[in-house]
Amino acid sequence: MSKEITSRSTDYSQWYNDLVIKGGLADYSAVRGCMVIKPYGFSLWENMRDALDKMFKDTGHVNAYFPLFVPKSLFEAEEKNAEGFAKECAVVTHYRLKADPSKKGALMVDPEAKLEEELVVRPTSEAIIWNTYKNWIQSYRDLPLLINQWANVVRWEMRTRLFLRTAEFLWQEGHTAHATAKEAVDETVQMLNVYADFVENWMALPVIKGIKTENERFAGAVDTYCIEALMQDGKALQAGTSHFLGQNFAKAFDVKFSDKENKLDYVWATSWGVSTRLIGALVMAHSDDEGLILPPKIAPLQVVIVPIYKGEEQKARIDEKVLELVKQLKALGVRVKYDDNDNSRPGWKFAEYEMKGVPVRVALGLRDLENNTVELARRDTKEKQSVSMDGLPERIAALLTEIQQAIFNKALEYRNSHITTVNSWDEFLSTLNDKGGFISAFWDGTSETENAIKEKTKATIRCIPLDNPLEEGVCVFSGKPAKQRVLFAQAY
Amino acid sequence: MSKEITSRSTDYSQWYNDLVIKGGLADYSAVRGCMVIKPYGFSLWENMRDALDKMFKDTGHVNAYFPLFVPKSLFEAEEKNAEGFAKECAVVTHYRLKADPSKKGALMVDPEAKLEEELVVRPTSEAIIWNTYKNWIQSYRDLPLLINQWANVVRWEMRTRLFLRTAEFLWQEGHTAHATAKEAVDETVQMLNVYADFVENWMALPVIKGIKTENERFAGAVDTYCIEALMQDGKALQAGTSHFLGQNFAKAFDVKFSDKENKLDYVWATSWGVSTRLIGALVMAHSDDEGLILPPKIAPLQVVIVPIYKGEEQKARIDEKVLELVKQLKALGVRVKYDDNDNSRPGWKFAEYEMKGVPVRVALGLRDLENNTVELARRDTKEKQSVSMDGLPERIAALLTEIQQAIFNKALEYRNSHITTVNSWDEFLSTLNDKGGFISAFWDGTSETENAIKEKTKATIRCIPLDNPLEEGVCVFSGKPAKQRVLFAQAY
Repeated sequence: MSKEITSRSTDYSQWYNDLVIKGGLADYSAVRGCMVIKPYGFSLWENMRDALDKMFKDTGHVNAYFPLFVPKSLFEAEEKNAEGFAKECAVVTHYRLKADPSKKGALMVDPEAKLEEELVVRPTSEAIIWNTYKNWIQSYRDLPLLINQWANVVRWEMRTRLFLRTAEFLWQEGHTAHATAKEAVDETVQMLNVYADFVENWMALPVIKGIKTENERFAGAVDTYCIEALMQDGKALQAGTSHFLGQNFAKAFDVKFSDKENKLDYVWATSWGVSTRLIGALVMAHSDDEGLILPPKIAPLQVVIVPIYKGEEQKARIDEKVLELVKQLKALGVRVKYDDNDNSRPGWKFAEYEMKGVPVRVALGLRDLENNTVELARRDTKEKQSVSMDGLPERIAALLTEIQQAIFNKALEYRNSHITTVNSWDEFLSTLNDKGGFISAFWDGTSETENAIKEKTKATIRCIPLDNPLEEGVCVFSGKPAKQRVLFAQAY
Repeated sequence: MSKEITSRSTDYSQWYNDLVIKGGLADYSAVRGCMVIKPYGFSLWENMRDALDKMFKDTGHVNAYFPLFVPKSLFEAEEKNAEGFAKECAVVTHYRLKADPSKKGALMVDPEAKLEEELVVRPTSEAIIWNTYKNWIQSYRDLPLLINQWANVVRWEMRTRLFLRTAEFLWQEGHTAHATAKEAVDETVQMLNVYADFVENWMALPVIKGIKTENERFAGAVDTYCIEALMQDGKALQAGTSHFLGQNFAKAFDVKFSDKENKLDYVWATSWGVSTRLIGALVMAHSDDEGLILPPKIAPLQVVIVPIYKGEEQKARIDEKVLELVKQLKALGVRVKYDDNDNSRPGWKFAEYEMKGVPVRVALGLRDLENNTVELARRDTKEKQSVSMDGLPERIAALLTEIQQAIFNKALEYRNSHITTVNSWDEFLSTLNDKGGFISAFWDGTSETENAIKEKTKATIRCIPLDNPLEEGVCVFSGKPAKQRVLFAQAY
């Protein structure tokens, strides 16, 4: 079989790439670090996007669209943000190509078409958006401004991986403006909760909510809130971030509003985003050595029906039953496909849909017709059983709900059994080496210690969990006094 | 009132800009030629996009996503396409900025981060997509490949106008691959029909379907099919194009497939697109001197309800009625807003929603409550009437359908009365000057004549209508023999 997948135990990283490529989610492209999102992968993204978009709208946000390009002078305006992204940005310098006289059919940059000011391809849109908000905000009546954008962004990463880290990726970025710091912080936390809700209830992936340390903070933020998930190899993955930006961007772009007492003040800001990176998290968290395992709520296809027959006459009898079943499933809102393609055999189809992570497979042949049964197989547990056709649509709908929960529970159990509390540096190292996962340890609160630990172990502080209890302790690395435990892990 | 709009008769062009800006559809940006699509405008685009997306999927297409950048060597590969777009493309040459030592806080392009190969920001994606299709297509079993992409593209236009011509715009581009020329032509025509269906039945804008002359053909196409609409100033606007690309791109990128007899042949291609330009067409075709007029099927808001009251007690009584009405309208799928914002007066609201083109306005005060009536006003005809609250939701739903049809009929009547058949050059000129619109005239079939007419009058051949009858005639300009009439017009 050409679609063989490397097993997780052989090479986790190759297993991941195999799933993404052979599962039909994405492909490499001719552009360094950029990928093609294939139709099956894009359909998954559409389901994720639509669910998120509804959650954004339900919390009062509207969509808009801002330019792809950020003029260099705007890009520079918020110093920390500029510094953070300058190292990895694509820069447009010219607006025309012309025939290259040295080579027939070739083009070259036209030196006469040099831009007066270079344009940065947005790595994130705070600068261009806050430069626009300046014109939209005068008074407290214009606030809050609750805008989201679905867009592509470019960060010139040197080491890229499909979905997890690509030079161009798709994401949404919310950018809100508020009259008070409290309102902005509330918004930041609200959107973190929206992300956690989405990742847990749609992607079936448990997350830990927390705050980043200064080292890991978004460039230009006062505080970065995050959700962290755990992959099957024991590494963590940052699944979404929500930033309280204080008045940093308002000051950089001079965005003031007059309050009810007619007093001028700078506007308070948030921004928050999740990206196609989530697809990478989804693949790594749930799938197995046979292929993808997709949670039903976002799976492009929830049910596939495969007929097993010889000849037209048998096919016609199966068709009759199946077309009725398809109709009933669609009426229940189930995404179902009847794969009666004659070019491939049932066994090939079974393997193909297993690879693609379709949650439920229904197979039926002549014997089933006679017994009024079908074979029902679930992808996550690989359980198969023969069940009656009576009440089958409802049974399948219920099974989809059950599978969604089972996938979450499995991931939760794995995650919970991979949070280890350690009290010594030896324990820290042995846990990291033997088991991976999150390590809960006292930290003295300094960047110096954080950097030293990263240097020695590649583990970083993933977050300071929200509502973390303050306790007296001793830093696991420096031995200095510490006020709380934080979560360390190696991460994607 | 700060929102006054220039009238069409005073300055049509300024009227258009006023509507776009003051109607809340878009705003200028800090980036030359790029615009910001504001939330109200974006909501309109979302409705258009969702309707189109469903039509694409219903005709068997799936979405995917390809990189924003096209490496120069791929961009060059299809010679005509490259030549057509080289003059107006944004080029990324560097991947990093660094601190500018000559100015504190400033950044400069890092000369050490020069790309080995320049990247063109996609002006259209044939090159990057066909370079990918090469890996996806081996056999006739891989065909047809029916893929669409929603994306941003960049064309460095020198003279830009909001929505109509911007350096960056949003669009969809379909790119399909087929085993035979006939199949590809059928697809080209099918998608033209999808566009015509959408523009007529959703945007309420009648179109003429036709084929472009060689002069106006898409760079790299064998044939460009188009739909042409007419604006209120008598100018035409190309509302969508569908291209039969022959084997041009398959040859440029060496994409071959083996047919059922195992014979290798180049793949046949189509591409087709519509863009945010359609919003410009929508604004110019239907609106009036008071503001936008939006067809109900795509209007972000279909009904607005404005209460007229003094004091809390009256408000409470109105609220009770309105909240019930809102619930009933929503149950019918109507997009409705109850604007009970206390900060602005009813008169201001009336003007605001008129400006924004909300199709139906419901107003009610205490007298109405007593009489069990509301005031129902339609935006397109400005008719107002007092109607009973009994059966009101159904009445409003029916009215929305009626308005959709009325807007289309009005545009159709205007369009039909602005197609003038002329038989002499004098008639051609006087029609163009006095009346505008489409001019149906014999043309000798040469680019020479087409160019000369364009030079003298700025009128171009908008299209050769589909199923145009062949008749003997004399070219309106050259006096040479002609085989058919074509449609001329000045155009956006």
